Amino acid sequence: MDTVARGNAAAARRLPLDAGEFRRQGRQVADFIADYYARIEDYPVRRAVAPGFLAEKLLETAPSSPLEPNALAAALRDVRELILPGITHWQSPRHFAHFSATASNVGALGEALAAGLNINPYTWAASPAATELEVVVTDWLGKALHLPEKLLFGGGGGGGGTLLGTSCEAMLCVIVAARDEKLAVIGDLVVYFSDQTHFSFKKAARIAGIRRGNCREIPTPREDAFALTAAALIAAVNADVAAGRVPLLLCATVGTTATAAVDPVRELCAAVEGRGVWVHVDAAYAGAACVCPEHRHVIAGATSVDSLSTNPHKWLLANMDCCALCVSRPATLGTDDDVILKDAAARARGVVVDYKDWQVSLSRRFRALKLWLVLRCHGVDGLRDVVRGHVRMAASFERMVRADPRFEVPVPRRFALVCFRLRDAEDSKGAHGEFTVSSNEANRRLLEALCAAVEGRGVWVHVDAAYAGAACVCPEHRHVIAGATSVDSLSINPHKWLLANMDCCALWVSRPAALDVSPPGFEIE
Amino acid sequence: MDTVARGNAAAARRLPLDAGEFRRQGRQVADFIADYYARIEDYPVRRAVAPGFLAEKLLETAPSSPLEPNALAAALRDVRELILPGITHWQSPRHFAHFSATASNVGALGEALAAGLNINPYTWAASPAATELEVVVTDWLGKALHLPEKLLFGGGGGGGGTLLGTSCEAMLCVIVAARDEKLAVIGDLVVYFSDQTHFSFKKAARIAGIRRGNCREIPTPREDAFALTAAALIAAVNADVAAGRVPLLLCATVGTTATAAVDPVRELCAAVEGRGVWVHVDAAYAGAACVCPEHRHVIAGATSVDSLSTNPHKWLLANMDCCALCVSRPATLGTDDDVILKDAAARARGVVVDYKDWQVSLSRRFRALKLWLVLRCHGVDGLRDVVRGHVRMAASFERMVRADPRFEVPVPRRFALVCFRLRDAEDSKGAHGEFTVSSNEANRRLLEALCAAVEGRGVWVHVDAAYAGAACVCPEHRHVIAGATSVDSLSINPHKWLLANMDCCALWVSRPAALDVSPPGFEIE
Repeated sequence: MDTVARGNAAAARRLPLDAGEFRRQGRQVADFIADYYARIEDYPVRRAVAPGFLAEKLLETAPSSPLEPNALAAALRDVRELILPGITHWQSPRHFAHFSATASNVGALGEALAAGLNINPYTWAASPAATELEVVVTDWLGKALHLPEKLLFGGGGGGGGTLLGTSCEAMLCVIVAARDEKLAVIGDLVVYFSDQTHFSFKKAARIAGIRRGNCREIPTPREDAFALTAAALIAAVNADVAAGRVPLLLCATVGTTATAAVDPVRELCAAVEGRGVWVHVDAAYAGAACVCPEHRHVIAGATSVDSLSTNPHKWLLANMDCCALCVSRPATLGTDDDVILKDAAARARGVVVDYKDWQVSLSRRFRALKLWLVLRCHGVDGLRDVVRGHVRMAASFERMVRADPRFEVPVPRRFALVCFRLRDAEDSKGAHGEFTVSSNEANRRLLEALCAAVEGRGVWVHVDAAYAGAACVCPEHRHVIAGATSVDSLSINPHKWLLANMDCCALWVSRPAALDVSPPGFEIE
Repeated sequence: MDTVARGNAAAARRLPLDAGEFRRQGRQVADFIADYYARIEDYPVRRAVAPGFLAEKLLETAPSSPLEPNALAAALRDVRELILPGITHWQSPRHFAHFSATASNVGALGEALAAGLNINPYTWAASPAATELEVVVTDWLGKALHLPEKLLFGGGGGGGGTLLGTSCEAMLCVIVAARDEKLAVIGDLVVYFSDQTHFSFKKAARIAGIRRGNCREIPTPREDAFALTAAALIAAVNADVAAGRVPLLLCATVGTTATAAVDPVRELCAAVEGRGVWVHVDAAYAGAACVCPEHRHVIAGATSVDSLSTNPHKWLLANMDCCALCVSRPATLGTDDDVILKDAAARARGVVVDYKDWQVSLSRRFRALKLWLVLRCHGVDGLRDVVRGHVRMAASFERMVRADPRFEVPVPRRFALVCFRLRDAEDSKGAHGEFTVSSNEANRRLLEALCAAVEGRGVWVHVDAAYAGAACVCPEHRHVIAGATSVDSLSINPHKWLLANMDCCALWVSRPAALDVSPPGFEIE
């Protein structure tokens, strides 16, 4: 085996997220950035380059596997030799455009640290400390800037602050808030989606001014495996057209949030063909699976869609945040009334891309560097291995669940998602096979018990003090259980040393509810 | 001087962005993340914490100066001891929620690298290599996933991909694109702003469905220093009300893009009082200046605004992206029809913040960590020093410009922005002091010359080959100018060695237009 092949094999064995490797690679990147700033003045702030100059130096497709044994080092060489000469050096002391003066060590390292932790604080519960820190620092900032009290959490008037990406987002948020206080809506346009579609679609529709009553949330019964059917869609569209409303957009999902259900894209496209309906495919999670031929059939019908998005930050090793949106007519996304200098870009109009027109915000981060690093360093085969490894683990778990008579797998496993539940007692099933209230309640209790275990240290800590626990009646021995304040349960057998006869065991539990996970008619083995 | 004071003094002397310091601190952070992953299983995935648990452990206001000599190390200790125990560990192998499995070394390091470079690729021209890389990797990804050709740049049908933060943004972008293809608008609502307001406000209004004709762009003449006046606003609002339209929102700017003009917030709020108009202040750049008492008057009138946003990524050492939005009635931003578990948050409703409701997207990064690090490590005094340092430099530059008879400063310097131009010949001034076409043209040429210098290596490279250049008529000597392909100009004196009489000097220039920067009636000294 030659050096390259050996290096590649070693890379394939490595976990994508390995602490030791991170230490080594992280230092490489820290040094790289330090080196960059040490010689930033050597770069021309903006080099005259021709559109396409970089693309012609890179491969046309992502490599199947890392090109070199040490992929990251090689990628950093590419950054230095191919990419840095073509970026505009916003932090150069000779860059005087765009109010761009304020990078700092701790700013960069704070972002790096956040990327390292890779959490997602969208609700308080989703990461309490992150939300609390945001509340604290927006108040810190507000006080440092002496903003009006009514805009701060600490002001007591119900106001407060948040951290967004850009002012553009801030403006949009407040315009929509103000608009909705006036209850204005766009009357006639209708959007279509299933009751399994991610709720953020409804939120986007609301932001875009679609009337709530014109959001057609089409039911997907369990017998259709929670997928949207063409028949149901056609019925909904026909009813709207008959009532004089205008069908606008269909959001089909490949891999729903709840069960990873797959809407039949080809049939849905056919259903609205000729109706002037924009078809968007949300493949946020499952799109990643298409790196494997065996999963590609899920988007086989996507040739006639108008747009499709998938999130490499969900299943392709790219850290938060990274969503790829592909559009067949990008010009429809554009806005023309702006004053940003496009100079070279404008001169070469039609050849270059101005990504600000593809999104809500003007400012944006250099996300491409992240995704490129991932594709370059892992290769498509590497990503395929990740996806297949996860699917294999899920299939293995599915077999374990199916082999256990206490559980059922109510919908087919899709990708790496296994939905399972405590089995209903047969005689308590609903007339149409629906789950009973008591069965749902039992499953809710199971979920709570699992979450409780996770909220603790993951491992239930039980102290068996069968004999020696008795000694704690004496103060001089109590130190032996001094650390027990954080245990989950403790038992002592009074029949051993406290004069009680057989059989007598005392059990204390910190969360008694966790003990009871039995559904009706179900016995713990 | 004790140790702490000495350390603080040393920190104050340090530049916010210092290469050597970055090398040291970057390695600390790399090690911190590596340590985190080495023991991530030790953390409970989600710890039961009570709302407010973190806030009570942190200071109520940002420190004035770094609390410890080594502020970053101390901050990392806080992250380890105060913050990590309260975050939900999304990357823990025992975290099974939210499809969150795919952090990776290179994903995190790609984000870190992008944070380090801190560029803003919103147009091709704003950073060509970054845009080209995004075009390449979205095609790489699309090919790896076997997406339809029509969605790719390489497909030849005009399609292509972009990288956004989340699917939520993708959905919004496509709904708005589809909606605008149908030309639907919200008829009656009117938004107000000046002709100096950042164009992204119009874009946000468009996304929110405000009719283009209902975007009141109020002119700001030069004699008002390009600030919006209350009189002009009142006239516009009255005209709309008289015509039966509904005034919705005013966007006042503190520190405009072109001249850092300051709209008089207090007067504008008074002008629309009682009209039910939401007042938003965009202080993206200049809000930062309010860390200094001498600048606070610019938002003194903001006590009656509804919202205000400012971008720490612009002038407060926080890297891209970071915009703080403060709102007096956050509930108006909210959406309620979603399925995200709020559990603990829901139980404590009214006490905790669910930030997903404050923004367009569901998913979001941990930006608070970055801003907290900046505030904690630099302190408010440190940020004040940065702002004052920039303002001092700008004032110094302004003095230089004013002392030079060739230039004028057409609007008062605001904050750290000096607007200057080649002075008009007095006799060519317009009747109302407006700039003449020919004067604008001269200034455009000056700007181009400056940009051309920047696009090169910043230093114009001239080769003086007065004597020896003549030798290049012989092939054996030509190597002496072999490297001249990248010079800006070269001169040879035929009167020295090529038989021409005095005086004869030949000059070649790569960009002849750069030589001519003279306005009408203006002589180069």
